[in-house]
Amino acid sequence: MRLAKLIILAICTMLVCLVQDTSAQPSLAERLGYPKDAKLLIVHADDLGMSHSVNIATIKAFETGLVNSGSIMVPCPWLSEIATYARANPQADLGLHLTLTSEWTSFRWGPVTSKDRVSSLLDKNGYFHLTESEAAAKADPKEVEMEIRAQIERARALGIQPTHLDSHMGTLYQNKALFETFLRVAREYKLPVRVAKTWFSRADFLPSTLKTDDVFIDRVLDINATVAPSDWAKFYTDAIKKLEPGVTEIVIHLAYDDAEMRGATHDHPDWGAAWRQRDLEFFTSDAFRQLLKDEKIKLITWRELSKLLQK
Amino acid sequence: MRLAKLIILAICTMLVCLVQDTSAQPSLAERLGYPKDAKLLIVHADDLGMSHSVNIATIKAFETGLVNSGSIMVPCPWLSEIATYARANPQADLGLHLTLTSEWTSFRWGPVTSKDRVSSLLDKNGYFHLTESEAAAKADPKEVEMEIRAQIERARALGIQPTHLDSHMGTLYQNKALFETFLRVAREYKLPVRVAKTWFSRADFLPSTLKTDDVFIDRVLDINATVAPSDWAKFYTDAIKKLEPGVTEIVIHLAYDDAEMRGATHDHPDWGAAWRQRDLEFFTSDAFRQLLKDEKIKLITWRELSKLLQK
Repeated sequence: MRLAKLIILAICTMLVCLVQDTSAQPSLAERLGYPKDAKLLIVHADDLGMSHSVNIATIKAFETGLVNSGSIMVPCPWLSEIATYARANPQADLGLHLTLTSEWTSFRWGPVTSKDRVSSLLDKNGYFHLTESEAAAKADPKEVEMEIRAQIERARALGIQPTHLDSHMGTLYQNKALFETFLRVAREYKLPVRVAKTWFSRADFLPSTLKTDDVFIDRVLDINATVAPSDWAKFYTDAIKKLEPGVTEIVIHLAYDDAEMRGATHDHPDWGAAWRQRDLEFFTSDAFRQLLKDEKIKLITWRELSKLLQK
Repeated sequence: MRLAKLIILAICTMLVCLVQDTSAQPSLAERLGYPKDAKLLIVHADDLGMSHSVNIATIKAFETGLVNSGSIMVPCPWLSEIATYARANPQADLGLHLTLTSEWTSFRWGPVTSKDRVSSLLDKNGYFHLTESEAAAKADPKEVEMEIRAQIERARALGIQPTHLDSHMGTLYQNKALFETFLRVAREYKLPVRVAKTWFSRADFLPSTLKTDDVFIDRVLDINATVAPSDWAKFYTDAIKKLEPGVTEIVIHLAYDDAEMRGATHDHPDWGAAWRQRDLEFFTSDAFRQLLKDEKIKLITWRELSKLLQK
């Protein structure tokens, strides 16, 4: 009994030491060369390649310098247009928005891989499943791995050199097997993935799968459907005013509220055409520029984070 | 020598009889139940499913009753939208615009069939080839057959009951092997294909491949890039005023000159966004309606033609 107590005490001591060691490690901000209390922000536009409207709105936002990162959906029909932009702008901070869902009912896409080889990823019509939960429930992780590798290789063949990876509709965070697959591929390519410390309480497999070598940011912010359209700017303004030190990514969805986007999102106002136009208006506004200045927020990119993995 | 002359004479007599028999057959107009001198016209919009702009412009034109037929590109991203229309409008005269090319550089699509099985149809990035000549030169007819069957079956699975078949960019008329493949599949489904008698002089394999049971129309009219934009209405007006008796199909391309179409066709003004808007304006105009009336032109559909094959 006395021996058991001693063993438990020893284990506890080791754990305390480990925790102290962890807290003693430099923060991500410090590893990037910034003060520990710096407020570092990535303003990230998802869904590039999905449609012309998304592409041209996001490129316009990149030109303001206020939106400084984005990720590309390789299986989507307008990939070629954004690949042309990527080749002409090699400094642009472009990652891949790995895609395993096709969520709009009038406008669909499917895999890069030959369909016969990834049948678990497909609905009865040969497109990706409509929702992330259906995709995650049906997807064979081996087929997921094949498809995400194919998306990365297709992007590279088109001259896109991705700086990071994330997952459209969060499909690759839906369960441990998918997240392990995602991380394995990302590590092989030495690319950081979108993972935030604030997500660790949501799913045990997130912290347990990550290694100390992996790069993960402090938090991800995004708007949601409970915010009234008239409160859009207020939501973002409040979030930015309350921004804590460390590395934050704000995830936005840009497009014009035009015929193409209204057609694609007609039965789904969440992340729809008007939503994306509101995001575009706020994140290209003088008010947002002033806010960054007033709050002493420094914009950083995934490219900076990726360099931590490539040392 | 005398015997040889007799044989030649006998063969010539048989050929004359055959020609007389053919000319004695009722014309297509008569087989459809119209007088031989009736001017019968199908006003046909190509490229449905390609983009939202094409879909909504063509649906608007269908609603006027002045454009009365169209064909759908099954591999394209907006197929689902036009399939919804087809299910809600089962009387609509919708065929399939069998697609083996992906001609726009910023906006691409690929096969319905699993890519591994149709590699001769694909460019290095896994999309269809850009041009009909490249597609025809590289395509293995067996893979073409597999893909066009897959397109027909995908359409049927989505509730589209095609009334006819044609070929995007004319790829399936590029050589005899492709045309034979096209006809074999069309005959099996008892569907008429876009073939005009006036094309017979272009390629010997067209008349030699057709059988008397096949349905082929008298002529196809379309505009071309030599017509100045300011002469658009004049070109169509003159063509319609000169319309000869028999069955004519006028092939048009409808869309709005909007951001989506300008993005898709930015480096290719022929069949581009402005071209399609001009077609839309003419073929939904009161002037066109009056012209049909003045010239005593009767609009007919491919559905009527298809019934000749289904007897």
